[in-house]
Formats: sequence, C-alpha cells, structure tokens
Amino acid sequence: MIELGHGADASSMILKYGKKEEIVDFSANINPYTPENIEKYVLEGVRESKKYPDIAYTDLRKDIGNYLHLKEEYIIPGNGASEIIYLLMKALDGPLGMMHPTFSEYERAAKLNHVEIIDLYFKEDFKINKKEIEKKIDSFEALFICNPNNPTGNVENLKEILEMLKKKNKLLIVDETFMEFVYENEKYTLVQDIKEYDNLFIIKAITKFFGLPGIRLGYGITSNEALLNKIWHYKEPWSVNSFAEKICKYIFKEERYIQNTKDYFKEEISFLLRELKKIKNIEVFESHTNFILLKLKKHTAKELKEKLFLEKNILIRDASNFKGLNEKYIRVAVKKRKENETLICALNEILGG
Amino acid sequence: MIELGHGADASSMILKYGKKEEIVDFSANINPYTPENIEKYVLEGVRESKKYPDIAYTDLRKDIGNYLHLKEEYIIPGNGASEIIYLLMKALDGPLGMMHPTFSEYERAAKLNHVEIIDLYFKEDFKINKKEIEKKIDSFEALFICNPNNPTGNVENLKEILEMLKKKNKLLIVDETFMEFVYENEKYTLVQDIKEYDNLFIIKAITKFFGLPGIRLGYGITSNEALLNKIWHYKEPWSVNSFAEKICKYIFKEERYIQNTKDYFKEEISFLLRELKKIKNIEVFESHTNFILLKLKKHTAKELKEKLFLEKNILIRDASNFKGLNEKYIRVAVKKRKENETLICALNEILGG
Repeated sequence: MIELGHGADASSMILKYGKKEEIVDFSANINPYTPENIEKYVLEGVRESKKYPDIAYTDLRKDIGNYLHLKEEYIIPGNGASEIIYLLMKALDGPLGMMHPTFSEYERAAKLNHVEIIDLYFKEDFKINKKEIEKKIDSFEALFICNPNNPTGNVENLKEILEMLKKKNKLLIVDETFMEFVYENEKYTLVQDIKEYDNLFIIKAITKFFGLPGIRLGYGITSNEALLNKIWHYKEPWSVNSFAEKICKYIFKEERYIQNTKDYFKEEISFLLRELKKIKNIEVFESHTNFILLKLKKHTAKELKEKLFLEKNILIRDASNFKGLNEKYIRVAVKKRKENETLICALNEILGG
Repeated sequence: MIELGHGADASSMILKYGKKEEIVDFSANINPYTPENIEKYVLEGVRESKKYPDIAYTDLRKDIGNYLHLKEEYIIPGNGASEIIYLLMKALDGPLGMMHPTFSEYERAAKLNHVEIIDLYFKEDFKINKKEIEKKIDSFEALFICNPNNPTGNVENLKEILEMLKKKNKLLIVDETFMEFVYENEKYTLVQDIKEYDNLFIIKAITKFFGLPGIRLGYGITSNEALLNKIWHYKEPWSVNSFAEKICKYIFKEERYIQNTKDYFKEEISFLLRELKKIKNIEVFESHTNFILLKLKKHTAKELKEKLFLEKNILIRDASNFKGLNEKYIRVAVKKRKENETLICALNEILGG
C-alpha cells in the first residue's frame, strides 16, 4: 500500500485509532471557505464528463491565462500541482537545488525520476539564504523554492535570486501554491516576471486557495518554450477531469469571494498568531499564509498529535519529518474562527495557558 | 503543444475546420448511455472535494472489489486506464511483447519509460497468433494484449496464452477496458483468474462502458504483490478525484443499467455490422464490442474522414496510424440507433449504396 509522509492523513489516523467523532483537521492547509456555487458549476461538468476532455485544454488554459493576465501558451494544466511537479522532474536534465525544510513530495518526485538533489537550507529564522545559493550555484541546474514555504509560512520576494540564477543560466522553480493567501501578494509573486524571464517556472493550483483539493487542478507556468515542450512530451493524456475544466470557467472570476478570502486570512492569521503566542511552551514562527509552524518546548510532536487526536478530536501535522526540522515541530492550518478557537483552547489545556 | 495520434480528437478537428454545427463523434469508443443519476452522485462528490482524497482509496477499492468479486487488495485505482498503463511501464523490468495493431498509447507509455518493445502481430483475420507468441516468448518479460482489441474489435479467451506464459514465468497484461460490452463476456474475461495466476495484470476503467471518460477512473488488478507494490511505489498521490470516488459507490450497483447496456449493444452491434456489410466498397471486420474496424476499397481513410466531417458533421477514426494497418482503415463506434442510421446513410451516399 501507499505510504507517504505528509499531512492530509485524516483517513489513515481514523483507520489507526478507529475514531467515530468528527475530526477537525488542522493538518491539511486548505481554505475552509469555498466559492458559493460549486454545485452549479460541477453539474455543468456532468455533460462534459460524457466526452473526453480536450487533450490540449484550450479553454482551460485561456481561463487560467485570463486569471493571471498571461498568455495561455505559457500554461500547462495538470491533475493537481502534483502532476506538474512530477512532469517537471522528468523534464529536468541536471541536479536540482532544493531549499529545506520544505514539502516532501518534491524530493519524492525527484528521486523517482532519478534527479540528483543538492540540499540547501533556509537560515535559522527560515529566511532565504542568498549566500548559500551563491556558494552552491555551480552545483545545480535548477533551484526549487516553495514561496510561501511549506511548512515554515515564510514568504519572500525572490526577484534577486531570479536575477542571480539568470546570469548563470540556471532555472528557478517556485511553488506559489500558497501565494494567494498572502495579503499583498503582488509584492512577492513572480507570475508577471514569466514574460521577461525564461529561466522561471511557477507551480500553482486551485487546491489550497479555493479549498478544493478533491477537484485535482494545478498548473505550471513558464515562457521557456523548450522546457514547456518537454513537459508536454511527457504528459499523460486526459489527466484533468471535466469538473475541474468546467469549474475554472467560473471560480477565477469570483472577485468578491477572492477578496473576501484574502481579507479573512489577513485578519485570521494575525488572530491565530497572537493567540498562539500567549500559549506557554511553544515557539511561534511568523507566517503570511494559511498555516503556522510551531516548535514545542516540552512535548514531542508525536505526543502532542496523539493527545490532540484522542482527547480533542483535533488533527495536526507532525512536522518532524521535514528535512532540517526535528521531533519538536508541528504545523497547524488557519481554519474558521470557531475551529481556531477550539485549537487555541485545546493547546492551552495541554501545554499550559 | 500536445500531439497524440488517437481518436477523441473532436476538439482539434473543430479547431482545424472551424465547425459550428453539432458533430456526431464516432471516433471515441464510449457508451452513449450513462447511468441515470450521475448528477446526484456527482453532487455528493462536491462535499468530498473540499477534502483531500483518501490516499489509499480504501472505500473505492472496496467498491471495485465488490463489483468484480475480488479482494480489494488486488486493486489499484488510477486517473483513467492511462495512469495505470503508465505506472505499469515504470514497474516493468524487461522487454515488453506487444500484439499489434493496437491502441497507440501503450507504445507511447512504454517508450517514455524506456521499455523495449518486441512487436508481435495478430493474424490476418486479427485472431491471436499463438505460434508467433511461442516463437518470440523468450525475447520478452511481459506480453501486452488488448482484449477485446482496439481497433479490431476481436475478442478471445486468452487462458491458453496465460498458461503458456505462466510456464515460462512471464507476465500477461490484458487491457479489458472494452470487455463489458461483449455479451457473454464471462467466456472471455480473465478477471476471476487473478486469484490463481500471479503472472496476470488486468486493466479496466469506467470510461468506456459507463460512458464517462471525463470522470477519469481506471484501475489495475493483480494478485502479484511484488508488482503491485512497485506500482504503488511509483504512484503520484491523490490522482483520483473526489467525484470519481463517489460515483463508484453507486454505478457498479446499477444492475438494470448494466444489463440494459449489454442487451443494447448485443442488438446494436449486430444491426450495425449487418447494415455496414450492405454498403459497397468497404470490408467489415467482425466485432463483439462497441466499435467496428472497416477497410475501404476505393477511398483513403483521410479522404473519407474529411468528407464525413465537412459534409455530414460526422467524425470517424482514421485508423491508418495503427501499426500493422494502412491508409485504408477506419474505425467507427457503435452509438445510439438514430446516430448509427445517420452514419449508414452518410456512408451509403459517399461510398455508393
């Protein structure tokens, strides 16, 4: 059976402990609010599901292009960000620099495709370490950075890194899956730099921000034609389902929903950070996105996770298996106010208020 | 952009010729009738789509297992049969025997995964060529057969081949995607042999028989634990969407729909074969499934395809690019009676009644 080290493991925890109660899942970093008319959009997809999806995803690429103000030629849709990550690894030629701690799936995808990984690390405060990149720049062909980074929550403007890599003719890959949660994300996103820089590849998805992981829609963006052709070359046919295709006709245009979500997270991230900082025996790392990294002073992540699950019906992410972290780290998602209060309350009880 | 040689290319033809009229698509081999309550089932998937799919697909594997009367352990679900085919190619060690003419995606998947292909050919009447298999058996590790075969429509009992391969410790891979359309398919399917033979891997999907290609659900079946583990090892997470998961709770239990579909195709395949045989200038190959291979005596496939598309709003499959066929072959799907009559009428007009 499949065994992966990530969060989103509510079902396996329930299987293990045989829980019957509703579990509040803080382990998956997804928006608890979804666009209002999903049912309606999905029903329109039913008609489409009786035909094969358009193998070139022409309309879908246009919808994404309009959302990003980019040409559709730059866009390749996939079955979640996952498919794009795996395809990218197939298309890479040389070693890949990877900035840790970060999402474990990148490394899994690289290894399964025999891509050599050069490990780099964020600084102790989880800021980008430019000096380390400079030092190791000749050892890799491409550099992979998640921004905002999972699990640290840190976001940065990577323009300087992009320039630095451009001069050396190296590729920068940025996973911006969590970027839309950042309030003034125009200060940080490199999406518009796609037009000018052909050494840039960005990964995005509807999974997190639109709160729809089960719909399976991610996409890659680049103006590097050679790279894009290589990825299309490896792509399996019809990997995006009809519902994902149809939903994208609508959700990117839901401006009020998008603005409300941004406003909500701006407020709620601050609230949760503030409340977490009041709790004893944890260190809280600043975050600009919809999850927060915490370091436990007394408990181990494993102990706290089990306690919260068994006693409080709360599931958190044990972050100890991220390269560069240890058994003291956990990660929690920012959810609805009431749920966040439940988490604060439970942590206070267990860790001491 | 992506360029593939298969059917299901209605959108690219429409793009090329700028058609506005409704096209009747005989190029994609899918059931024109779908289960009645798809809308209802899909709506249930909306709730699920707000969570990550279960990475181990426990419930889904149970649903498929109940349908096939097999243990869920034997089953691995995928994003259409495509994902299973590509994963299988990653898991194979040695050269792969492939029985032509057949679906081109097998060869594409093999080549992209650097699997060497040993070409074998059906006999002139498209029956299995046991002698050729015997002759070449030492040159491959696994043999791939589509049964019923796309595009020839021929179905056979492969038990003898399975035995022959078992003795030599070779794997038999059978794509049974079209098997449910065959009226007495219990005479031909190897699904129940999975329990006894660990040198057998079967590929199936809901795409064709349930008429739902856009939902993206296929599955592999084997009792070969080592092979299955290898495939799980390569599998990308969450590749099956929530709607596919939910729909499978219901459609496999729709016994009346399943029986009606089988009855319909039994009758309709005979009707279409009979009517096609009356048309001048074509040779009709016997079929037991939902598509029919035809050989043109005067026109080329390309000419006829363009004529039917431009003059009759009908799309057929130019089958000239199947290995072992030539520019004279076309393939048509069995659709609803009225559509089939339209096809007969158009062919009569163009080819001479």
